[in-house]
Amino acid sequence: MKFTAQQIADYVKGIVVGNPNITVDNFAKIEEGKPGTITFLANPKYTQYIYTTKADIVLVNNTFEPTQPINTTLIKVADSYTALATLLKIVQSTKKQRKSTIDKTAVIANDATIEDNVYIGQFVVIESGAKICSNAQIYAHSFIGENTVVGEYSTIYPHVTLYHDTEIGKRCIIHAGAVIGADGFGFAHDENGTYHKIPQIGNVKLGDDVEVGANTTIDRATMGSTNIHNGVKIDNLVQIAHNVEIGKSSALAAQVGIAGSAKIGEQCVFAGQVGVAGHITIANKSIFGAQTGVASSIDKENKIWQGSPAIPVNTFRRVSVVKKQLPDLLQQHQKLLKDVEQLKNDKIILEKK
Amino acid sequence: MKFTAQQIADYVKGIVVGNPNITVDNFAKIEEGKPGTITFLANPKYTQYIYTTKADIVLVNNTFEPTQPINTTLIKVADSYTALATLLKIVQSTKKQRKSTIDKTAVIANDATIEDNVYIGQFVVIESGAKICSNAQIYAHSFIGENTVVGEYSTIYPHVTLYHDTEIGKRCIIHAGAVIGADGFGFAHDENGTYHKIPQIGNVKLGDDVEVGANTTIDRATMGSTNIHNGVKIDNLVQIAHNVEIGKSSALAAQVGIAGSAKIGEQCVFAGQVGVAGHITIANKSIFGAQTGVASSIDKENKIWQGSPAIPVNTFRRVSVVKKQLPDLLQQHQKLLKDVEQLKNDKIILEKK
Amino acid sequence: MKFTAQQIADYVKGIVVGNPNITVDNFAKIEEGKPGTITFLANPKYTQYIYTTKADIVLVNNTFEPTQPINTTLIKVADSYTALATLLKIVQSTKKQRKSTIDKTAVIANDATIEDNVYIGQFVVIESGAKICSNAQIYAHSFIGENTVVGEYSTIYPHVTLYHDTEIGKRCIIHAGAVIGADGFGFAHDENGTYHKIPQIGNVKLGDDVEVGANTTIDRATMGSTNIHNGVKIDNLVQIAHNVEIGKSSALAAQVGIAGSAKIGEQCVFAGQVGVAGHITIANKSIFGAQTGVASSIDKENKIWQGSPAIPVNTFRRVSVVKKQLPDLLQQHQKLLKDVEQLKNDKIILEKK
Repeated sequence: MKFTAQQIADYVKGIVVGNPNITVDNFAKIEEGKPGTITFLANPKYTQYIYTTKADIVLVNNTFEPTQPINTTLIKVADSYTALATLLKIVQSTKKQRKSTIDKTAVIANDATIEDNVYIGQFVVIESGAKICSNAQIYAHSFIGENTVVGEYSTIYPHVTLYHDTEIGKRCIIHAGAVIGADGFGFAHDENGTYHKIPQIGNVKLGDDVEVGANTTIDRATMGSTNIHNGVKIDNLVQIAHNVEIGKSSALAAQVGIAGSAKIGEQCVFAGQVGVAGHITIANKSIFGAQTGVASSIDKENKIWQGSPAIPVNTFRRVSVVKKQLPDLLQQHQKLLKDVEQLKNDKIILEKK
Repeated sequence: MKFTAQQIADYVKGIVVGNPNITVDNFAKIEEGKPGTITFLANPKYTQYIYTTKADIVLVNNTFEPTQPINTTLIKVADSYTALATLLKIVQSTKKQRKSTIDKTAVIANDATIEDNVYIGQFVVIESGAKICSNAQIYAHSFIGENTVVGEYSTIYPHVTLYHDTEIGKRCIIHAGAVIGADGFGFAHDENGTYHKIPQIGNVKLGDDVEVGANTTIDRATMGSTNIHNGVKIDNLVQIAHNVEIGKSSALAAQVGIAGSAKIGEQCVFAGQVGVAGHITIANKSIFGAQTGVASSIDKENKIWQGSPAIPVNTFRRVSVVKKQLPDLLQQHQKLLKDVEQLKNDKIILEKK
Repeated sequence: MKFTAQQIADYVKGIVVGNPNITVDNFAKIEEGKPGTITFLANPKYTQYIYTTKADIVLVNNTFEPTQPINTTLIKVADSYTALATLLKIVQSTKKQRKSTIDKTAVIANDATIEDNVYIGQFVVIESGAKICSNAQIYAHSFIGENTVVGEYSTIYPHVTLYHDTEIGKRCIIHAGAVIGADGFGFAHDENGTYHKIPQIGNVKLGDDVEVGANTTIDRATMGSTNIHNGVKIDNLVQIAHNVEIGKSSALAAQVGIAGSAKIGEQCVFAGQVGVAGHITIANKSIFGAQTGVASSIDKENKIWQGSPAIPVNTFRRVSVVKKQLPDLLQQHQKLLKDVEQLKNDKIILEKK
């Protein structure tokens, strides 16, 4: 189906700069734009492509001012990435029908509760006492343990394991292979160095609108709950240990690891491969660069950190520049040591004169 | 069910300090304690909470001496964490019944051996020649490959893949999504840069009492075995490559990676996200801080390491302090260079005078 | 079955140095060699073992010249590792029969295409519009989403999830638990800090001869495709984000993470736990040491990098040596500061004299 620039602009509350009647029927990345496609410019790194893209329409921020002639039609909006999301949602809703059947191969315990309009895929296992709330979707092979609850409109993709007593809020998305509620890594070791398992009798609670990436693991609490609050977004292969708490609207990129009992504030952002030590507290709106190692608590909100151990990002950048020069600096330093020694000797000679 | 402080103390071989008749019926973390709960103090970081906790009983080490008045009843024991484990085990045993049925949806090869009192969950696949020893539990969807053996009393949680010829010892616990026995990452590359796969014809052997975390991967050996010895505890998302050997009672926290043919000693401890290079040897009782990169063999036992590449932890801490100051040091150094140059010139002038 | 050194040498185009009639019937690692086994020497680290190995035959490179007496029979070949691979392949082909049945428990959509000589294991799910090309093997529990294509002779191990619209080339190997095609991690956040999901309407394309490790995750593109080109080898627990492109014959070791829209060249090598930032470009034949953090584009081909942020490996090594000495250097530096200050004062006194 084709849409004109004007139709799209009306839909996303934007203003057309160029040809309002030009039509598109597909999306493209700005550097791969073709006639008949719409694209977007959000990351300034890609600004160069707006002057050469073959896409017919580009969503741009209101603040964008071209510095060269432009051949494409622009739609100016408050936030181009959000406008793109709005359009993609329409496309997705027409492409993907919501399923609402219960596959005959699924094994559902007699005393499990299955509410209305639920999809349950092939070979799904739903154990005793579990509850699947209305409009939830459970894809093939997923395992819903005893007394676990999946909230309304949540989606559980294939091969997910939700151990017993897990609580998943509303509108959550759990991607394939994620494991929620496995035992926390807790052992006491005796005088011979042998480890004895500490039973993990707590659980995991996810708030509403939480997304969990593929093959991510979130461990149950030793006692009490591991708590992931509303709106937290977690990427693939992330590890969240027992008794961790993550404040609302925080985002964790792939391969981040949060050790046991750490308390993460709200609206924090973790880039890929960051590690956070156990039993520490992270202030709201903290931001961590990739591979950062956070070894101790952070009290000041709204700061950016990088390095292992973590230091303020500006310091990290300056340190990184100096670090490269260390071998040269060492040489200069050693020469300085000699020079100063020489000067001290010379001074004595001068004095003697 | 309620228990008095005295009953609990008798059970864990402790001494009551306070009210021996006070009763509890649940556990709590010390900072979240409520009336009717028992908690524990093991990590000194949490000592402050013992003076304010609302829990009615706190397990503490014999060595604990309060520095302020305490309102709760104490039970003093040799090791509070071990005592906690003892109590949690009782709770868990009453909560979770051992299952011992074979689900009718499981597919078990005719020539597989299933010993007594085994649980086999829904959609489990057990291939030809495999052997499930007595009292083992295999949860839903797990895949037990050809000729693989699962030892007595071992538990395999949902969605585990044990490739062919894997050997799992007694009382092991394998958490959901773990993959044991996938091919090692071995390729020979030709003059054109094309990789050719080296077939991986070895296997993986786990000793007794090994625990493997969720979504952890342990690769089969190219030839011979990847060996995980008795009592090794492995957390989630850990990678263990082909032909690795891990000595008994070592512990690996989440997201650790051990490269091919590395030999890890006994009673070693790896904090999260540590990486170990291939073909190296690590001495017994080595301890590695989070994110450490171990690039070469470690010969001395019982040392603590951190950083990438790894250095002694004390050096690492001192280096970390100095590192932050590098930009300032560089400035001072450059001023020194000028000063010394000036002094050298001044000296010549002085001499000339 | 036994083979003589001469028979093996003929097969791998090598030359026997020693007893051409000695026979072997198994493989061993060089340090664990036993009578009746053949082994190999490729990594120079293991050269010491050739003088003591109990193996009866050792595959060595033509260039190998012993420096001590040798008791074993050598087979000299152009490349010992490749020769080993050739032999292991024969063993594997006799051990493992290709399966070509369709298990009756598999659920296959009516409009899915299943070509000739395909193996489909227990509880496999193949969704509407999917296509399994001839000679492909799909192991137990795997999920093949709508319109996904698995190419000829490809192998999908247990518990793999291929989301809808994924394209897998010929002769690919996807290990257990891998997830291909989950949503990219894309969110727009509003003025309240709330994240809104960007629908991910693209897909993942794998070329031919790609290997994907256990529990590795490769995300679908926001729009367009995440592209993994021919001959790329990916180890376990690797994360590849949306819209990434990886050039042919590149290799990624375990736990590597590549962030969104990064473009990786051909024949690149990533050691374990390397992280690559989003939206950057990496030149062909770049090599990265373990745990390296690549924060910005690399333009020069054929260079080796290490550290976080990445620097040339030689610099990294020299910096690592100096870094350890920083606390000592700081002390010397502080003494220098004092000495120079003293010299400056002394000079004034000298001048005054």
